[in-house]
Amino acid sequence: MTKLNSEQDFLTLIDKYFPSENGHVTLGRGDDCSILRSGTDLCISKDLFLEDVHFRRSYFSPADIGYKALAVNISDIAAMGGQPCGFALGLIIPPSLESEFWEPFFQSMSALAKQHGLILAGGDLSGGQYLGISVTVWGEAAGGRFLSRGNAVPGDILFLHGPAGMARTGLLALEESGTKATDFYPECVQAHLRPPMRVAAGIKLAESEHVKGLMDLSDGLARDLPRFLGCCEGSLGARISLDESQLHEEIIHYAESKSISAAEHAFLGGEDYALFGAASADGFAELKAKIPGLHQIGTITGDNKILLNGKEYTAGGFDHFSK
Amino acid sequence: MTKLNSEQDFLTLIDKYFPSENGHVTLGRGDDCSILRSGTDLCISKDLFLEDVHFRRSYFSPADIGYKALAVNISDIAAMGGQPCGFALGLIIPPSLESEFWEPFFQSMSALAKQHGLILAGGDLSGGQYLGISVTVWGEAAGGRFLSRGNAVPGDILFLHGPAGMARTGLLALEESGTKATDFYPECVQAHLRPPMRVAAGIKLAESEHVKGLMDLSDGLARDLPRFLGCCEGSLGARISLDESQLHEEIIHYAESKSISAAEHAFLGGEDYALFGAASADGFAELKAKIPGLHQIGTITGDNKILLNGKEYTAGGFDHFSK
Repeated sequence: MTKLNSEQDFLTLIDKYFPSENGHVTLGRGDDCSILRSGTDLCISKDLFLEDVHFRRSYFSPADIGYKALAVNISDIAAMGGQPCGFALGLIIPPSLESEFWEPFFQSMSALAKQHGLILAGGDLSGGQYLGISVTVWGEAAGGRFLSRGNAVPGDILFLHGPAGMARTGLLALEESGTKATDFYPECVQAHLRPPMRVAAGIKLAESEHVKGLMDLSDGLARDLPRFLGCCEGSLGARISLDESQLHEEIIHYAESKSISAAEHAFLGGEDYALFGAASADGFAELKAKIPGLHQIGTITGDNKILLNGKEYTAGGFDHFSK
Repeated sequence: MTKLNSEQDFLTLIDKYFPSENGHVTLGRGDDCSILRSGTDLCISKDLFLEDVHFRRSYFSPADIGYKALAVNISDIAAMGGQPCGFALGLIIPPSLESEFWEPFFQSMSALAKQHGLILAGGDLSGGQYLGISVTVWGEAAGGRFLSRGNAVPGDILFLHGPAGMARTGLLALEESGTKATDFYPECVQAHLRPPMRVAAGIKLAESEHVKGLMDLSDGLARDLPRFLGCCEGSLGARISLDESQLHEEIIHYAESKSISAAEHAFLGGEDYALFGAASADGFAELKAKIPGLHQIGTITGDNKILLNGKEYTAGGFDHFSK
């Protein structure tokens, strides 16, 4: 095992994996601040990714941790219909982690950054007892505007780009069986460890005048849908259809093994980082044709109720469905 | 004691202390991203502020922690000659901390933010075993340009705005005597707990064509001076004069009590957040007249050596002074 003995060792490793200049900054790492090149508004987001809170090292490889710590932030930019430009990185570094951990961690984070054209523009390193990663990411409105949540009206289509419930299935299987979960739920495990980013779809959604609002599913439809509706004026509701034929076969399999409803399980979801939004009904066919994978999961109503497959959902959860 | 039982309790408390809109954002907190209003380049910095790494709760009050977590970030903007605009806040929250901690924490952070016109533009909350604060701050070039480190040439004046060595004296006294340190070193303790921010001076420095480069003293002159020189081309050196008559009487008193050199103690410094930079010799008198408190501490040389009060300083430290 190879010790990283100083801050300079870390900075050298970071320089190996991340270029310090690109068109998104006029001053890169190494000064009191970096300088973001900007002639327009920027969107910005900041997330914490902490050991034993957001991930476990028992089933997240170093490369998975490096990927997901940055990915969950990129997803916030995608959820604004933005193009990510760069990020700042804060690392809380436990003394036990040696270069065998950090090389694949940075390699994987760097590959994701490169894929989306992000520059690493500074940050902070500190010792600590538990591994923690704090990322701040910024982006531009490549689609001509940013898409906030809400802005929907009754009759609008609710759509998803990406799955609901796969990451939750992966998480629960990993918590139950550790890395063996991969044998039975390979795609759901992957969806939890390495959620795919939907930047291109987000930008196309921002380009379309038919799209009203957008967010990403980080806490699951059950929690994120009321937040989306809450950003609209008036007392909106929604009718959601999650047909078993639309759900991934691993979700169906998992739900059957636990004797639970696959649709309710998918509705609870969490960490899918699918894009979730509303579009006008008359423009949705055109939108679907332009963005492969976009699919309707419901409609906006004006009755202040959330129905899942025809049954009313209340904030208390599925134990309290009205009959 | 009053428990904060949910993320919503925290968000409500944050809303109580921080307005969610001002001219620096076009979209405030509560969406996937906030949107920064910007027609020009922005400078950005990110720091971690972690319990038992950067502060101790045994002698930092909740209000001190809230102040300093934001202050060290504002200082990075000041060190670019920038005007801070806003910040994003990541909190790692141990379950033991109740609202009696968080009220003064947010109140103090909010007072500092208000003083400098900063908006809180989002962030992230998470549970954790140790208290940690991760701040990302951004700013604009109110002085017409940003000041990076370096850019000095032989003959330039090295200046300070603020003290060297007071925060180190305060820190060592607090580590030795806890809160009783205040009885003997009241101003040095205050300099460690509540370093004053030098935003106005930084902007005035950026406005002057005589100023070559600027940084803030976060690690002390001994470590920060070589970093400053390293950003210049060529093999620059510096002659530093730290006369005892210029040092705070509490530093002199501390050094005498430990039988150490007050000048060397001040040169080691750390966490003073004084502004440190270089200016052309012919413009320095004019600069000093414009910026109260600015004072010369040395000159840039071309001989690749650092002399403190005439004695050569090497990276090994003061035990290795050449005779």
